[in-house]
Formats: sequence, structure tokens, C-alpha cells
Amino acid sequence: MTMRDEFDKIEWLKSRFELGAEPDGVVVGIGDDAAVFDFGSRPTIITVDTQVERVHFRRDLISFVDVGRRAMVAAASDVWAMAAMPSASTVALTLPADLSEQHFQELIEGLAGAASATGARVIGGNLSRGEALSVTTTVFGLPIERPVTRNGARVGDAVYVTGTLGAAALGFAILDAKRTDLEHAEHFIERWRRPPINGWAAKTLATLATAAVDVSDGCLQDLEHVCAASGVGAMLHADTLPTAPGHAIASRSLGLDPRELALAGGEDYELLFTAPTSSDAEAIATKIGEINASGTVNVVDAGGRPVAVSRSGFRHFS
Amino acid sequence: MTMRDEFDKIEWLKSRFELGAEPDGVVVGIGDDAAVFDFGSRPTIITVDTQVERVHFRRDLISFVDVGRRAMVAAASDVWAMAAMPSASTVALTLPADLSEQHFQELIEGLAGAASATGARVIGGNLSRGEALSVTTTVFGLPIERPVTRNGARVGDAVYVTGTLGAAALGFAILDAKRTDLEHAEHFIERWRRPPINGWAAKTLATLATAAVDVSDGCLQDLEHVCAASGVGAMLHADTLPTAPGHAIASRSLGLDPRELALAGGEDYELLFTAPTSSDAEAIATKIGEINASGTVNVVDAGGRPVAVSRSGFRHFS
Repeated sequence: MTMRDEFDKIEWLKSRFELGAEPDGVVVGIGDDAAVFDFGSRPTIITVDTQVERVHFRRDLISFVDVGRRAMVAAASDVWAMAAMPSASTVALTLPADLSEQHFQELIEGLAGAASATGARVIGGNLSRGEALSVTTTVFGLPIERPVTRNGARVGDAVYVTGTLGAAALGFAILDAKRTDLEHAEHFIERWRRPPINGWAAKTLATLATAAVDVSDGCLQDLEHVCAASGVGAMLHADTLPTAPGHAIASRSLGLDPRELALAGGEDYELLFTAPTSSDAEAIATKIGEINASGTVNVVDAGGRPVAVSRSGFRHFS
Repeated sequence: MTMRDEFDKIEWLKSRFELGAEPDGVVVGIGDDAAVFDFGSRPTIITVDTQVERVHFRRDLISFVDVGRRAMVAAASDVWAMAAMPSASTVALTLPADLSEQHFQELIEGLAGAASATGARVIGGNLSRGEALSVTTTVFGLPIERPVTRNGARVGDAVYVTGTLGAAALGFAILDAKRTDLEHAEHFIERWRRPPINGWAAKTLATLATAAVDVSDGCLQDLEHVCAASGVGAMLHADTLPTAPGHAIASRSLGLDPRELALAGGEDYELLFTAPTSSDAEAIATKIGEINASGTVNVVDAGGRPVAVSRSGFRHFS
């Protein structure tokens, strides 16, 4: 189809996002002044994420479908980290005049696919012109039991993380260095382009976790946020950090330190949580340390020796 | 104060937006993965507005305080148009590297002041870098009684509008033409820079209106949206359109048609609604026409003769 203007775009978005009948909870959908959603009588989780071209992504490194998917999943990840399930979303798009209709539609396909996969059905939004493409996604969710925040970590809790660490940062580095020849390169690139759907883990967090965060700034820094909010410290064991096959070799081929990538590489969008040690926690995540009363986060190697970690690693601004 | 990085900015935003103790409904505020808000057991209104530099505003025409205020009020306006009251908001900012701390703080002052004036307390958000300054405001609200949508206009209803029409477009034209010498120029400029706080009118809409919309694209076009959604038509009386003192003279001085500005000028953010004729409606708004079964919106002059209106006027993309 050809979209003449804003109103045609909105009509198309309406059909693309609504996928048939109004779902539960949507009282008024896309096309009025505002959307109306009935969250029921539970507190609502609200999170916002913005992805800006040339800041968070470059067209030569990622498809428009994946830009859309990533924007939605990055926001949903904050909801899962509170042990909640996404239930609705709004999408504000700033579109440069030179964005083709094909690319616009691909972007929407990515958003719509991720909305469906995460449960964050798109119920409203905004279209605006601008020089740089940007996608601001607001995701709403409902706690599975109660919201798990950053401030509940207790001395003696174990520190757990789902999936692997540093893979997204390594994937970006591989793309940036044009080294797709490296072994397992596709896996790492995939981790950067397509963050994981962690709704299944949120269910376990709801029953076990004392505190949780998603790994967006890097494992070490995100754990520091949890410790600061909880008034505790932590010891991380560098040899237990979960990394994907080929992580060390690919990192070194690019002149990067594999351990630093795992500790400081951002955008993995895995879930880091604290909980009493249990087989249920170990069934969904890897134990990487313990909470203590020290007030700081320290990293030790297999022999118990302190590991110095550069904090400058990957401190992005998003 | 000097803000070193994102985390300092967030701490400052937290102090600036939270204004002391946690208000009612905020379960978890700024600084965790997401905000948690308890909207109670009523359906929640959600609306999103984006203001982009060089698209919606230019630094030489409006202060940063007013950019912030405008972003919040433009979004709150969609909530009022549903006969609802704003209760919370999130703000996603894309900040260019060259934005000074002074300007950043002014922007936040404008947002915080408008959040307070509208009731849309800021409970979360996102900071991102980007080339152009942009402000995406999501405002949440609760219906006063039930949401008033666009699709309830009935044949025989009167068409009402609050405030005046075309003043914001005229104010922008005065600034753009550097004609601040014109009589009442300050008033028109003010209407563009500082959209009205219409919460008081929303309360009347809740009891009277069959359909409502805020005037963002221009009175004629916004009424067409209402008519299309309701399956009706309308007759507008050009001589009854409310305009501010000096509107006709200032318009003609700029080579603009005063009537066209009132019908097609956008960004007034007044409330246009349909309702049975009543003194309560007339107490808050001006009657400008009637709903009929024609299926189109026609404009007539005082003698009942058709008025041709250029639709090309002010069709923006935001």
C-alpha cells in the first residue's frame, strides 16, 4: 500500500497493531486523542526506552525490523526485571523525511512482532517528523505478585544472572570492526541485534528474588546500582561469569579483554537478581557472587585474588 | 549544581520532579527500572506527544522553560479532551551534546511546572543523547466519569469550542515574520508559546459532551475527525468563530486570511466538543455550529452562503 500522509500511516498502524478484535483491557484503542486501558486494580509498571539513530544503532549494522524489535524488548526487559509481565505499550516515532515507506513498514513489523512476543500490545502512540529516526517505547506491565525493586538485596543472598554476559557488546564490536569471519560471530551479532525475551524468567523472579535489574549498562555497574539502593555490597567471582562459546577467543582477536567485556559490556538485557541460594534460582540463572555488608562491589578470581576492572568500559548515555 | 553524567542528571530530576514525599498512587518512583503507579480500579487514559527541535519549535522563538511546559500541556490536552484528569506522566528526553546545563535545567523547570499545573506528576522517564533536542511526554489520566471519545456526536448536537481559534497559528506567524510591532502581538505569541490549561473545562465535558477532541490540527480538520468517527456531518458558522481582539487586523497585516487562520490554524489546544445546546455548555465555550447527517463538514457565512476553505493551511505532521 501507499501511505499518503500521517492519517494513512495511522490507519495502517491501527490495522497492523490491533490484529483483529480489541483485546482484553483496551477500552479505546489507536486513533482517538488517547488510548484507554483498564489495568484492573493492581499497580501498573511503566517504563520508557528511546533508541536514536547514530546513537543506539546505525542502519548499516542492523535491519529496521530488528531496530523495532530491539526498542520494544529493551523496554519490556525493565518490566521483567521488576517481576512483572508487559501488558500494553505506546510507541512514539520520529521519522526523517528520507525514510522510505519500506523501511517504515519494516520498523513497524519489528515493533508489532515484539509487542506480540512480549505481550506489550501497542495501544497508542505518536508520529512526528525529525532529522534522526528515533523510537520511544513506553511499556506497561502488571506485577506477577509484587514489584521486585532494586532495594531489597540482603546480606547472604546469592547474585544470579540469566543467559550470558558481554555477548551483545562483543557482537557490536565484531560488527564495528567488520570481523564477521570470527568463529561464532553470528551468535554474538545476534545477541546485540536481538535481545532476549525473558518473560519466562520473570515468573521465577516473582517467587524468589529479593532485588533485580536488567543488564543494560553492564553487569558490574547494574549490580552497583542494586547494592547502592539496598545499602549492601557484593563479591563477584570472575571465573563464574557465564559467557557464550568462543567469547574469549573472539574478544582477544579484537584486542578486547574477555573478562572486562563480561563485567562491563552493556545491552545484554539479561536479568540480574539477588535471592537466597536455591535450585529453583539455579534452574534459570548462573550464580556469580554473594551479597555482603561491605558497601562496594569487588571482583575476585578463582584463587580469591582481587581483579581490577576498568569502569570506563561501556558507560553509554541512553 | 554541576551534573557530571546521566546518573547525576537522574538524581537531580528525581529531586526536581518528586517535590518531597511520594504522592498518592506512586508505589515506586524515578530511579528504578520502571515506575510503579496505582491508578486504582478505573480505566487509564494514555497519550503521547513528541516535540522535536526545528520541527515543532526553534530556540530563537521560544524559551526552554516554555518548550518544557508546552510538551506537557500538549499531551495533557489530549487527556482533558477525553473528559479526564491527568494524574501522572513520563518524560523521555533526547539531548544534543551541545545543550547547556542551564538550558537543560530550564527545560525541566518548564516540564515540572506544567506537571504541577496539570496534575500529571512525572513518575519516570528516559535520557538519551541525540542530534536534535526532543521531548516525548506520555501523560496518564483517569476519566472524571467515563472517557468522552470522538465517536459519540449525534445529529442535532451543537458544536462548541473553548477559548479562541487561530491565535496560536497567528502568534507563530508573527514570530516567524518578526512583526512583534503589531497590535496585540504579545497575546498571540503567548497563545503559541503557552497553550491553555483546560482542566476546568474537562469537568463540564464529563457531564455534557457527546464527543470531544483538542484543537491541534486546526478546528475544521479536528471536527472532521469527530464527524468521521461518529458517522455524521456538521455545519460551521464562520461569523461565530471566537477569535481574540486584533485577530483580523494582525492576520491581514501578515497577508493571511483571518477566517482561514481560525478554521485551519493548529496548535490552539482548545477543546472542541459536541453536546446538546445548553447554558452550561455556553458558560465554558462558544457555539460555532451544529451536527447534521450530511457526512461532511461545511462552513457558511452570516448570510448562509457557503465559504470555501483551503485545506492546505496548516497540516503538520506531528
